[in-house]
Amino acid sequence: MMKLIQFPLCPFSRSIRMALTEQAIPFDLVDERPWEWRPTLLALNPAGELPVLQLDDRSVVCGVYAISEFLAEHGQNACADNRGVQLFPGSREQRAEVRRLVDWFHRKMDREVTRELLELKVQPRFGPDGKHSPHAQLLRAIASNLRYHLSYVGFLSYQRRWLAGDAFSFADLAAAAHVSCIDYLGEIAWDEHPRAREWYSRVKSRPALRLILADRIPGAPPPPHYADLDF
Amino acid sequence: MMKLIQFPLCPFSRSIRMALTEQAIPFDLVDERPWEWRPTLLALNPAGELPVLQLDDRSVVCGVYAISEFLAEHGQNACADNRGVQLFPGSREQRAEVRRLVDWFHRKMDREVTRELLELKVQPRFGPDGKHSPHAQLLRAIASNLRYHLSYVGFLSYQRRWLAGDAFSFADLAAAAHVSCIDYLGEIAWDEHPRAREWYSRVKSRPALRLILADRIPGAPPPPHYADLDF
Repeated sequence: MMKLIQFPLCPFSRSIRMALTEQAIPFDLVDERPWEWRPTLLALNPAGELPVLQLDDRSVVCGVYAISEFLAEHGQNACADNRGVQLFPGSREQRAEVRRLVDWFHRKMDREVTRELLELKVQPRFGPDGKHSPHAQLLRAIASNLRYHLSYVGFLSYQRRWLAGDAFSFADLAAAAHVSCIDYLGEIAWDEHPRAREWYSRVKSRPALRLILADRIPGAPPPPHYADLDF
Repeated sequence: MMKLIQFPLCPFSRSIRMALTEQAIPFDLVDERPWEWRPTLLALNPAGELPVLQLDDRSVVCGVYAISEFLAEHGQNACADNRGVQLFPGSREQRAEVRRLVDWFHRKMDREVTRELLELKVQPRFGPDGKHSPHAQLLRAIASNLRYHLSYVGFLSYQRRWLAGDAFSFADLAAAAHVSCIDYLGEIAWDEHPRAREWYSRVKSRPALRLILADRIPGAPPPPHYADLDF
């Protein structure tokens, strides 16, 4: 069986975990804390980054970009049997739009919001003293970036059925990966983002996301609404 | 004719410009300075990032990830006519290795070296006063990261014919895009990296790279060895 080496609140790991579920591919989870730079992780992926997908023959595919395209090529075959969703559906132009948005969430939103929040609020919990005192000005900047990204999600989902067009795609999974991590930390004021909430409510009802939403970080519970479909 | 909206020392733009040349696709260049956030660029790409490829029907493909995969799908057809190289050649596993390395250079090396150098050394030249005084400690950290990345290029090219395997691929173009930008700034001590130099010498002899190496930034000439095949 395939193994996904991941961290539960890593947005890249989450998106691949959901993609595997959407494609009906069975896999085992192995947890890893990438900031500890363990030699076993570096031996699998010299970049020291998550996720890493270990195949049945023990060879590995490293990083969300390579893994998502690898699974998409698998999915092209799987879809012939109606076994799973296509991660990059549609015409060549439509696939380009999916990839533009995957890049938006996995690179731009990650840099401007998610990575900063995880470094400030999650990694210190695993450190020797568990202390953290994030700077108020930095938190305000992150909150402002977050409002911008949620507005963009709302804008897209108001114009289209799913974020990249009529079809559900890896762009929805990438966005949901970031939104769900940030929501776990209680950082989203959903009342301010009714359109993004409507989209997220639809994504939350998919089996792939429900599995993710059952994860808990020891000592850091999510807010009460986190796993509710009606939030 | 397609239009590539780009900045001459943007590594993402360079890699796509080379990919278009390698695929024998004719295109026009339009220069843009992404840090000026001009409304015309934002209208094409709301992320405000380069490169942007405008197609014959005036629709656009945004960002190096979407464009490279878009061209690769084009290339699969083109190769049937022997008109250009495949950007992601080989088996599904080999394509995953190309993508792992593209991600390495376009995300990891960019974050750890190229983006920092360009922000410190190039953008100030276009500013109102042209002053810049980068911090010595930061420059030492970047130089250390650069040695690490060039060692990795040397390690890969010593084990394989090209960076991702036997075949030339977009991983070579992504790496060459970063190396050529950094070399333009005179930051590479080639004597310390004979294996990376051997690889770069082979890449430099390709027509795609020779076009790139003819670019000059006004008022900021590259070092004398920059465009030489024997350096």
